Amino acid sequence: MENFTFQNPTKIYFGNNVLDKLPIEAEKWGTKTLVIIGKNSVKKNGILASVCSTLNMANISYHIFDGIKSNPIFEDADRAIAIAKKEKVDFILAVGGGSVIDTAKAVAIGYYADHSVWDFYEHGIKAEKALPLLSILTVAATGSEMNQYTVLQNNSTGAKKGYGSTHLYPKASFLNPEYTFTVSPEYTAYGVADLISHSLEIYFGQGKSDLSDHYVASILRLAIKWGPIAVNEPENYEARAQIMWLATNALNGSLSTGKKGGDWGVHAIEHSLSVLYDIPHGGGLSIVFPAWLTHHLENEKQRLAFLGREVFQLTNLNEDEQALGFIKGLKKFFTLINSPVSLSEVKIEPNQERIILENLIKNKVNGAHHKLNESDYSSILEKMW
Amino acid sequence: MENFTFQNPTKIYFGNNVLDKLPIEAEKWGTKTLVIIGKNSVKKNGILASVCSTLNMANISYHIFDGIKSNPIFEDADRAIAIAKKEKVDFILAVGGGSVIDTAKAVAIGYYADHSVWDFYEHGIKAEKALPLLSILTVAATGSEMNQYTVLQNNSTGAKKGYGSTHLYPKASFLNPEYTFTVSPEYTAYGVADLISHSLEIYFGQGKSDLSDHYVASILRLAIKWGPIAVNEPENYEARAQIMWLATNALNGSLSTGKKGGDWGVHAIEHSLSVLYDIPHGGGLSIVFPAWLTHHLENEKQRLAFLGREVFQLTNLNEDEQALGFIKGLKKFFTLINSPVSLSEVKIEPNQERIILENLIKNKVNGAHHKLNESDYSSILEKMW
Repeated sequence: MENFTFQNPTKIYFGNNVLDKLPIEAEKWGTKTLVIIGKNSVKKNGILASVCSTLNMANISYHIFDGIKSNPIFEDADRAIAIAKKEKVDFILAVGGGSVIDTAKAVAIGYYADHSVWDFYEHGIKAEKALPLLSILTVAATGSEMNQYTVLQNNSTGAKKGYGSTHLYPKASFLNPEYTFTVSPEYTAYGVADLISHSLEIYFGQGKSDLSDHYVASILRLAIKWGPIAVNEPENYEARAQIMWLATNALNGSLSTGKKGGDWGVHAIEHSLSVLYDIPHGGGLSIVFPAWLTHHLENEKQRLAFLGREVFQLTNLNEDEQALGFIKGLKKFFTLINSPVSLSEVKIEPNQERIILENLIKNKVNGAHHKLNESDYSSILEKMW
Repeated sequence: MENFTFQNPTKIYFGNNVLDKLPIEAEKWGTKTLVIIGKNSVKKNGILASVCSTLNMANISYHIFDGIKSNPIFEDADRAIAIAKKEKVDFILAVGGGSVIDTAKAVAIGYYADHSVWDFYEHGIKAEKALPLLSILTVAATGSEMNQYTVLQNNSTGAKKGYGSTHLYPKASFLNPEYTFTVSPEYTAYGVADLISHSLEIYFGQGKSDLSDHYVASILRLAIKWGPIAVNEPENYEARAQIMWLATNALNGSLSTGKKGGDWGVHAIEHSLSVLYDIPHGGGLSIVFPAWLTHHLENEKQRLAFLGREVFQLTNLNEDEQALGFIKGLKKFFTLINSPVSLSEVKIEPNQERIILENLIKNKVNGAHHKLNESDYSSILEKMW
């Protein structure tokens, strides 16, 4: 086990009645909020109306900022910051999935800055403080509701960058599985692919912790059990609840204890792809991860075999078969929930190879633990067609 | 999954260099502390000297309160509170195991009370505030270093009672596996029995959460893997580290998410026994738990079988055999690490049966989920000889 520091102060309200607790949490921070939402889904499914009615009853005034894209951009964050400053809000309320919460985090730190919020991402400027942030989760995927990270995109430079600060843990997050009933089968599957990928990025990071390894295997096994049910029965409360809590736990820091850190090379490759082609993040991950694992089959055989045994119960096979069996099983699972496993499924053809490679090289895409050079890029890319 | 609320703000420093971080955490709370310790071990093994020298260098003045017993009593807490008030300390620093940290928690709330601290435990009085508490852990067992609970004993009434408050989460806890090198093989084993029991109390509580079930199985499996190594090789850093982090995770609230709550019937029985005979808590638990599980074999067969498969890999047996196999395996494991599994091993003979039964009846000992009547007491007790 590695030395580590761990703290996660976010308060989680989980269940079908969590909105009842919004007033008591909101009142801790003030009487005026900026509500940040995505495009239209929370308007159509009635969640926004419930939130607004709860805020009205609690005498909390609000301004709504809408239109956050599923690959969120810093320009939207900068626009929302201008409104937050003008309205002098006391706290931020994100109502949405990871892209909305990530944008809300940018607004929370940007509120106190006299420069574009992108500078935090680009130059790693340390945030000294942030507006308090509450989140109401409507998509199970990124874990942003219980961590200190935010990822935004810069369309003009083609970069997608992450930023982390202890000031960015939401003060409280409200997780009602019913709020994910209207997430489409596609985006439900991408969310499952996302949470699986987060667990795997940590698992293949530096340092070894037995408890983390077993927790990762638990999360993968349960994502594979409940994912297809959530995809096929969108209003199955139990399946939605399981997937929601798995996604939160995949990236709330608990899996990283006893480790030096995750790898995040697959995420870096996927970010590079999604800036070029605007593919959904989770869908991109389910394409890249099996290729990355296949590329690392030999040097990670033992750890892949552990997952083969624990996740797919391949106990009666030898280590080679267990390792390969895990990759095959994962790919088969992604296909089962209709998350793509090849670039051609998202209409990216082999003639794009040079463009993709050049973008990987230009952005020096890499993992923290498994270092990638140009020949690694080619080998991984070749496995994605 | 059940609705739930979760928050755990304690900051954990884990590793062989954690004392370096004591000044930065201590300075957040003031310049004067009450250091609470047990009997002699932290003096003999040099941990107290390291802590004092660190406090001196950070210009933090301190008063030492020593002599906390392994079954801690409220009278010691009251005496420590008097000193904390007289010295007007800014925060409490516990250096020890669960009994020391539990006493320190009592001091933290008692500091602001004008009555005996026992009233909190006896009457469930709500604590409005508490002194900040830091802890330096020297025994892996109770999880008190990362939760809001404290258990104290009242020798005059024969009661052992728990108390919980969100004000009682330590602000920071320092977990150095090396600080447990001098814990005796017996107490190392009792600590392992304690952490296993905490996981099982939660597992057999009300409500079902898949993630909690798998996390419990992970903790049990790893306790069984690393426990004997920690017992037999006291200076094996890796084994000490694994057991230390397992014990913290067994009772930091993460296993309770998605559940209504734990059962805690076995703890209630053990508390009743340890007040009568002063047996070590963990040793008492390894006697009571197998008996309690055997008593519930029929009505908990399915959940016992899950543990048989996941913890002892009894996948090729039928459900009956898996369930019974788990209990047998657990008992065998406790015997392997020399934690007692029968009352006669701790010199309590069958002629004590009436006294034990009467004490259970008098104190209305029960679990929150599995309700026990007098005939249940007799049946469980019979299995403990």
